[in-house]
Amino acid sequence: MQDRIAAIRDVAVLGTGTIGASWVALFLANGLTVRVYDPNPAGEQLVRDMIARAWPALLELGLLTDGANPDGWSFHTDPCEAVRGADLVQENAPEREEIKKALFASIETVLGDHTIVASSTSGLIMSRLQEGRHKPDRYAVGHPFNPPHLIPLVEVVGGKDTSEDTIATLMAFYRHIGKYPIRLHREVPGHLANRLQAAIWREVVHAVASGMASVEDVDAAIAQGPGVRWAVMGPNMLFNLAGGDGGMKHFLDHLGPALESWWADLGAPHLTAEVNEALIKGVTDATHGRSTAEILAERDAKLMAVLKALR
Amino acid sequence: MQDRIAAIRDVAVLGTGTIGASWVALFLANGLTVRVYDPNPAGEQLVRDMIARAWPALLELGLLTDGANPDGWSFHTDPCEAVRGADLVQENAPEREEIKKALFASIETVLGDHTIVASSTSGLIMSRLQEGRHKPDRYAVGHPFNPPHLIPLVEVVGGKDTSEDTIATLMAFYRHIGKYPIRLHREVPGHLANRLQAAIWREVVHAVASGMASVEDVDAAIAQGPGVRWAVMGPNMLFNLAGGDGGMKHFLDHLGPALESWWADLGAPHLTAEVNEALIKGVTDATHGRSTAEILAERDAKLMAVLKALR
Repeated sequence: MQDRIAAIRDVAVLGTGTIGASWVALFLANGLTVRVYDPNPAGEQLVRDMIARAWPALLELGLLTDGANPDGWSFHTDPCEAVRGADLVQENAPEREEIKKALFASIETVLGDHTIVASSTSGLIMSRLQEGRHKPDRYAVGHPFNPPHLIPLVEVVGGKDTSEDTIATLMAFYRHIGKYPIRLHREVPGHLANRLQAAIWREVVHAVASGMASVEDVDAAIAQGPGVRWAVMGPNMLFNLAGGDGGMKHFLDHLGPALESWWADLGAPHLTAEVNEALIKGVTDATHGRSTAEILAERDAKLMAVLKALR
Repeated sequence: MQDRIAAIRDVAVLGTGTIGASWVALFLANGLTVRVYDPNPAGEQLVRDMIARAWPALLELGLLTDGANPDGWSFHTDPCEAVRGADLVQENAPEREEIKKALFASIETVLGDHTIVASSTSGLIMSRLQEGRHKPDRYAVGHPFNPPHLIPLVEVVGGKDTSEDTIATLMAFYRHIGKYPIRLHREVPGHLANRLQAAIWREVVHAVASGMASVEDVDAAIAQGPGVRWAVMGPNMLFNLAGGDGGMKHFLDHLGPALESWWADLGAPHLTAEVNEALIKGVTDATHGRSTAEILAERDAKLMAVLKALR
């Protein structure tokens, strides 16, 4: 497997939105050669801007490898030019099945025998995306968490025709370039991380909609409390530690019933016009007059500080 | 209000479990005089141990104020001795209504007219705890997140007889000693933060029980992804930023339907013997042979690093 990973030197990135451009920066930081495709020639500047923004952050986090080269890429408006000779394709086209399928069909004749095609799709199902391909076994989802060059998580899931070899190679490749890939064994809407976000946000919306607390206070109930711990470890291991010497068994014996009773009491809100209005008003109140740019800068500075602390 | 807060100099802490002992350390770090009660004389040593452990962390985080004094406390096995003369009582008795109610009754005659009684209860309802008291308006929940001397969040909620003045004073006091109090407007099981934890953990358990991913990978789907951001900001503000210039409205217009569809697909597992077994086995696998002590040390070191990064 190490040879296989080392053999991935040429990467094609399809689509230059935020996700695609961020992947480019990450691949370059790892010394890979990147050919970038976007149908819009303006995509070239978007990639240039992203690399300029990402490079200092990658440097600060110690994520620039010896071979890192911010200029090691070329831009193409023909997808076949980008894909020809690529060992791996990372696709980031718009989230519509017919667009992604058409793009996959258009590059098929220039794909190498060994080439893996990974889709950054956050919502589409690989079993459908790979339909009709000559080598459907080489296609898999590699879904990053925004921005891919900073957040470690990548969700890997295959479709019905994806081979175990493709999954294993892709997992090892992502690990090799410093990501934290996880393996999903079933195709479900939203993969896993977005479902977990949806699950907590449902109770967040319930708390706001039922007048339990302000939007600002509900956000603080996460960021000033469990959120600090979730940056460190997932809830299962935290509960295991909370169980002391008895571990998860002790925790489940003692707190399982309480958790089940809370489950039974969780809300099931809907995003009605009224609820949306409460969320919009509440989050506006929570800005306390700060501009979006100011809050973005605060988020990015704190995110960098946390990522640095965790390395 | 500033005068009122400044007048809180003497604090009584009832109960010397982890939460109670941690409160003692925090109060001492803020230069307050603390009288500690526990029916078990061994509680004195528990408090001494906690202060010894907490002090270097409080120092490192810059949380020791000018008046901080690790010796500014006394220990009592009679609750009235601890409470007499206290401006604030922080109660941390076992989580059983009859125990807390009996303790409140036993200290009633020595409570000052102005004294506020805050309960650290994680699960009981203040409207019931304050029943039968002479001055029920002075009682409220002040529920910390473990460990109180490190994690900023405190949930404040009153019962049906709690006065607005008590709530306001308690919120200002917690803020004054460096906590991040949030105000809950309704008494619900689990307050807010624990419900939010329960909500995400329900989908975590569903993912494990349905074979979607391993316990270790589900934990990583949080800690290597959204968890990093939740240490920085709550989900509402993050979604507001994700909406770009259009903010939360743009986010809801574009991603609201996807989130609602994921809500509809979330699981509703139960902690059956089989599910518990899968959680216990999965978390054991995730330790990769490391001892609980090693993982605890990792958690605490990373937690300190993150808290420091966020200050």
